[in-house]
Amino acid sequence: MADIKRVAVLGSTGSIGRQTLEVISALPHRFSVIGLAAGKNTDLLAKQINRFQPKFIYSQDKNPPTGAGCQFLSLEEMASHPEVDIVVMATSGKWGLKPTLAAVKAGKRLALANKESLVMAGEIITKEAKLNKSQILPVDSEHSAIFQCLEGEKQKAAKIILTASGGPFRGYSSTRLAQVTPEQALKHPSWRMGRKVTIDSATLMNKGLEVIEARWLFDIPFDNIRILVHPQSIIHSMVEFADGSVKAQLGMPDMRLPIQYALTYPERLENPNLPHLDWDKIKELNFEPPDFDSFPCLKLAIEAGKKGGTYPAALCAADEAAVELFLSKRIKFTDIPRLVGQALAEHKSTAHPTPEEILATDTQTREKVKEMVGNNR
Amino acid sequence: MADIKRVAVLGSTGSIGRQTLEVISALPHRFSVIGLAAGKNTDLLAKQINRFQPKFIYSQDKNPPTGAGCQFLSLEEMASHPEVDIVVMATSGKWGLKPTLAAVKAGKRLALANKESLVMAGEIITKEAKLNKSQILPVDSEHSAIFQCLEGEKQKAAKIILTASGGPFRGYSSTRLAQVTPEQALKHPSWRMGRKVTIDSATLMNKGLEVIEARWLFDIPFDNIRILVHPQSIIHSMVEFADGSVKAQLGMPDMRLPIQYALTYPERLENPNLPHLDWDKIKELNFEPPDFDSFPCLKLAIEAGKKGGTYPAALCAADEAAVELFLSKRIKFTDIPRLVGQALAEHKSTAHPTPEEILATDTQTREKVKEMVGNNR
Repeated sequence: MADIKRVAVLGSTGSIGRQTLEVISALPHRFSVIGLAAGKNTDLLAKQINRFQPKFIYSQDKNPPTGAGCQFLSLEEMASHPEVDIVVMATSGKWGLKPTLAAVKAGKRLALANKESLVMAGEIITKEAKLNKSQILPVDSEHSAIFQCLEGEKQKAAKIILTASGGPFRGYSSTRLAQVTPEQALKHPSWRMGRKVTIDSATLMNKGLEVIEARWLFDIPFDNIRILVHPQSIIHSMVEFADGSVKAQLGMPDMRLPIQYALTYPERLENPNLPHLDWDKIKELNFEPPDFDSFPCLKLAIEAGKKGGTYPAALCAADEAAVELFLSKRIKFTDIPRLVGQALAEHKSTAHPTPEEILATDTQTREKVKEMVGNNR
Repeated sequence: MADIKRVAVLGSTGSIGRQTLEVISALPHRFSVIGLAAGKNTDLLAKQINRFQPKFIYSQDKNPPTGAGCQFLSLEEMASHPEVDIVVMATSGKWGLKPTLAAVKAGKRLALANKESLVMAGEIITKEAKLNKSQILPVDSEHSAIFQCLEGEKQKAAKIILTASGGPFRGYSSTRLAQVTPEQALKHPSWRMGRKVTIDSATLMNKGLEVIEARWLFDIPFDNIRILVHPQSIIHSMVEFADGSVKAQLGMPDMRLPIQYALTYPERLENPNLPHLDWDKIKELNFEPPDFDSFPCLKLAIEAGKKGGTYPAALCAADEAAVELFLSKRIKFTDIPRLVGQALAEHKSTAHPTPEEILATDTQTREKVKEMVGNNR
């Protein structure tokens, strides 16, 4: 019946990329893999190439794996190639920016999991998407929830209530947070995610970045976005409308659900692999306000988002550098917000930056964070 | 900008009717009252006529009130009059059936609060609505919630999760229920409603009737409708889709919200009188399975719905008769399900009944319940 959509998965060896391939495997009558792009996990990429036989590949490896008749493309070429119907952007960090821009300029359906591109360049990307009729489908449980709640509505959201699990250290004081180890921070209570995102979830930086994403995806002022801690991660976010009615989207905490929705929208397909909520087991859903004092990343992100310009790019770069330092045990958990705050305080912003200015901010800010640590210890 | 829609409010002196007039009063640039119909509350009807200056009126009173230039119409004439844009059907009991049918046959937008018409004649009404392109907008927090969750979706609900407050006697044993008085039963923990509906909420008959309504409104098998007790009445119901995603609609327990939505759909309008949820105050939402043993009305209703024919009409009539007897203190609270069960057990059903056969069932069953009480005491 329906034709088979050709999907390019950029970042195929990461957590979202692997789960995307799981979803596609379960729906072979609807989707095929036309492109795979990965960083340095060459072993896994080779296996994926063998399994999915893509036409296009990309790898950061100097000796990239290859398949019969595989064509090597750059990320931007793959994201904009005429034979690609859907681009799943699951690369991490700033690497997503240029291919994301290429995909929207080519008018593709973009299943967007890369947070940084929207955070750093939300203005450019949403403008180009509109101009080129590119549909951005968020691959993030929160933004997918908001998107689903808005579906069919004639008006924009009056308010967005972005839920947050609160991470593994919910309820911790700053003093206690200073002692947490990377091992503890990598254990998220409800979600299975990559390392960087998991640490960002523990600092709540992730939620701050999501606020900025929501601002761009749903064209809503920052002051109409509210964060609500909901430890069970069952309600993935909510939208309040002009009349006071609120819609919420719920589901098991499983990224395959928003991934599949981004692929199949506006349809929904049965997939026996996807988990369903069991109301015999759900006895209560809890809510509490976020702790802005113990988790300063939240406020830092929202402030950077409000200031705009290259501040959000500086935020992302400083955070990525700081998280790397924390994971390699060179700084404490509470040094992450301290370093990000310092980097932002010293940042000289450019208004309405070009992608090149954004990427230059990224490089400079990373250097600065490394220097700050060198100087401070 | 938008033209003013002319609304006929049938049952204008009841709880839903009065709240409908409140909503219309707050949105004078969008709605006007063209018709008012009431039962025997002549004083209030006279005041409403004075205030809203409707063109059409109906009253059950032998000396009906009148306004300057008011035209007296039957309920069916008013519900199908060419000058009426929206019919709000807020009469109670079987009186709603014929005017509801008249409204759908005339292709009106029908804001339907009268439960009995859909329960007794769901097959006829939904068929006629489809034939005549009449849009039925449910005025009931649960069905409005489901309708809102389905808006914009390309597929039907896979499952409906109908929430129930559990009523004032949640957690009561049958023994304890045998002792409850009409005064206690009339105190609903979260909703402001008419007397009959309030007692039906206490026996959970109301929820059973809602299951039957949902079956017809959303064309879903009974086995895909699940009842979930949620004491706070914040989540008004939920829909599960094929992919496992669940949408919920939330709001303060206030009937003016679903009333307004039924009037303004597909738009939503700001109305300063409508309450908004305050997430600073909502700390938890609780869920539990319904107690089918202490509240046998629930199962009686679902069984009658599944059997179809004139069983649902017998159910409604027996319940209404039993509730009247309870309110006049002639029977115990626990006699309500007993009498309904007995009436259903003795009922001889007609398949695919006509409206006349449905109304005949109503009359016969009421008589039977009165006889049963006469004989038993």
